[in-house]
Amino acid sequence: MLSRPDVAVVGAGPVGLAIAWRCAARGLRVVLHDPAPGSGASHVAAGMLAPVAEAYFGEHELTGLLTDSAARWPAFAAELTEASGADIGYRTDGTLVVGLTADDLAEARRLWAYQRGLGLPVTPLRPTELRDREPALAPRVRGGAFAATDHQVDPRRLVPALRTAAERSGATVRPGVVRQLSDVDAAVTVVAAGCGAAALTGLPVRPVKGQVLRLRAPDGGAPGFRHVIRGYADGEPVYLVPRTSGEVVVGATVEERADTGVRAGAVLRLLRAAVDLLPELSEYDITETVAGLRPGTPDNAPILGPLPGRPGVLAATGHHRHGIVLTPVTADLIADLITTGVADPLLAPFTPGRFGPRPDTRPPGPAGPQQTTEDDSWN
Amino acid sequence: MLSRPDVAVVGAGPVGLAIAWRCAARGLRVVLHDPAPGSGASHVAAGMLAPVAEAYFGEHELTGLLTDSAARWPAFAAELTEASGADIGYRTDGTLVVGLTADDLAEARRLWAYQRGLGLPVTPLRPTELRDREPALAPRVRGGAFAATDHQVDPRRLVPALRTAAERSGATVRPGVVRQLSDVDAAVTVVAAGCGAAALTGLPVRPVKGQVLRLRAPDGGAPGFRHVIRGYADGEPVYLVPRTSGEVVVGATVEERADTGVRAGAVLRLLRAAVDLLPELSEYDITETVAGLRPGTPDNAPILGPLPGRPGVLAATGHHRHGIVLTPVTADLIADLITTGVADPLLAPFTPGRFGPRPDTRPPGPAGPQQTTEDDSWN
Repeated sequence: MLSRPDVAVVGAGPVGLAIAWRCAARGLRVVLHDPAPGSGASHVAAGMLAPVAEAYFGEHELTGLLTDSAARWPAFAAELTEASGADIGYRTDGTLVVGLTADDLAEARRLWAYQRGLGLPVTPLRPTELRDREPALAPRVRGGAFAATDHQVDPRRLVPALRTAAERSGATVRPGVVRQLSDVDAAVTVVAAGCGAAALTGLPVRPVKGQVLRLRAPDGGAPGFRHVIRGYADGEPVYLVPRTSGEVVVGATVEERADTGVRAGAVLRLLRAAVDLLPELSEYDITETVAGLRPGTPDNAPILGPLPGRPGVLAATGHHRHGIVLTPVTADLIADLITTGVADPLLAPFTPGRFGPRPDTRPPGPAGPQQTTEDDSWN
Repeated sequence: MLSRPDVAVVGAGPVGLAIAWRCAARGLRVVLHDPAPGSGASHVAAGMLAPVAEAYFGEHELTGLLTDSAARWPAFAAELTEASGADIGYRTDGTLVVGLTADDLAEARRLWAYQRGLGLPVTPLRPTELRDREPALAPRVRGGAFAATDHQVDPRRLVPALRTAAERSGATVRPGVVRQLSDVDAAVTVVAAGCGAAALTGLPVRPVKGQVLRLRAPDGGAPGFRHVIRGYADGEPVYLVPRTSGEVVVGATVEERADTGVRAGAVLRLLRAAVDLLPELSEYDITETVAGLRPGTPDNAPILGPLPGRPGVLAATGHHRHGIVLTPVTADLIADLITTGVADPLLAPFTPGRFGPRPDTRPPGPAGPQQTTEDDSWN
């Protein structure tokens, strides 16, 4: 064993790996802990980089962070491709948001108006424009809009690329399971363990189940559409993400459950919505049905920054539906915080402290929870 | 190596294994050849033993054979359970045939009238009787009938049980692939190779694709219904086979294709029909999506008996949708034929010779197909 590392990252998903890469590239000695890197939510995720289509009512600060991180993606993707030598499936064809019925379209338009009010680039299309962009859409589709800056990446390519980049920068990955933070010896510990952060830190991170299908275009060909398609089909939200390889990811349910079973009803609803929007999918093979658990938080926004009452411990978790798009900004700002000691103002709305008093996961013993007199602040 | 076996069986699916068991139990020395026993159509099959519900217009002789074999099943199942010590999932709860819409019910009633005209036991039920029998049926289901003698067995339990019984009777299984019948050295060779029979014999056996789903009841429980349910749902035929283990088999497509890909459109149609008939299936897990290839023939009936022009070679193939139900009669009659030299009259409609001149699979060489002067007849 060498001497104590500067940074220990618990969790080698995209967020943990990117933080490790950024820290190692700045000369810090970094160790990642994960028994199965990339086996969490990112293994199921579609990889949409969609700050516009994901901008929802009442999530103004999250939208700002999504937009900031999405703007970092082109350079991040280029740098990562260079550093890893790997193709990460980054595609900038843009996203079409469509409505199948008049009701679906009315619902979509309400959201587009909100997004345009924020100055976000979503452009309603005439039906002929929509078909010109994507002739494979069902004739029933009533209308849609184009979000040119909503891109995609393949999370199953992203994770190994990030690992390569992190390791080439000097980070090491250790397969042991971290059951408590005291198992980790480092100057700074970053908890990037997704849903596992709850048990490690007491933070209010809960599993939010998502079921996803993977299809494959016939005869080894590419999918017959090139945009990410997000739609409402008879009230059912669905997305269709085409990969150059021929894969199409169809997702996703959002369920307050912690199991990873694949339910017949969910598969039926996803397939029905997918085929209603894009009939040719009927002829695609189903290659995978899978469910994962997103790390959700009370306000749907991530938890980024120093853990109150735990000096030297940072959280980078709770990314919920947004882990892939938020990977660059998370990695940059956490690495900045570690190396400079100064928190970027962007982090202010996302501190662990926003959920109230200091969390404490130690079980109450005979003497009750232990208290610490150390300074809670990071700086 | 011991001396030449009396019987070589090519193909260790249910039919081949049962023939081997019956022959070995009569004192013959039997060798089975199969690189992957039970990996063919039986691995996908639901295992319905349904001579009544499977009695279709224009298939009078096949219906007779199905009825005969189904009548052998109770004793066959008891004997096999005794011989193997294994539970084969044999259940006699009977089958409900139902129609979702008025059109579906009209279609079903036409078939019931035909089946009742043949004297087969299918009993139309009043809606209240139907719900009393199976309360989990959707309220939309318009009507149904009860086929008390249409039972089920689990093919994935049947195959290992048959193998155990065959081996305990002295048969041996060899894993080599038989590429041509001249690779096999035995007094009698039985070709029970399913779709593989075509290449070995030249018989008109073609693959007929079937896609099937396997679901699992929630929380480790049994399915919420006990009958096999066969239905028409908005024109889509579907069956639902409940197992004591909690498994439900949902099937099946019938397609003139030779690939084993699982198509999104087929899964969507099967799930929609299944959930329309039995809404609780929506909450079941999908544990498997799979496709297999049935050995179809020009008249949908099996090919049973001596191969013209190939002395010492018998066919037992082409069982199409009926391989499981026809296993006992096939095994009994083929074993009788081998041991007594006398063909049961039941076999007459199913001889290999009914498709015309002797098949010949030898590639035409410079001198053209070889001719044989040996007697074509079996006896």
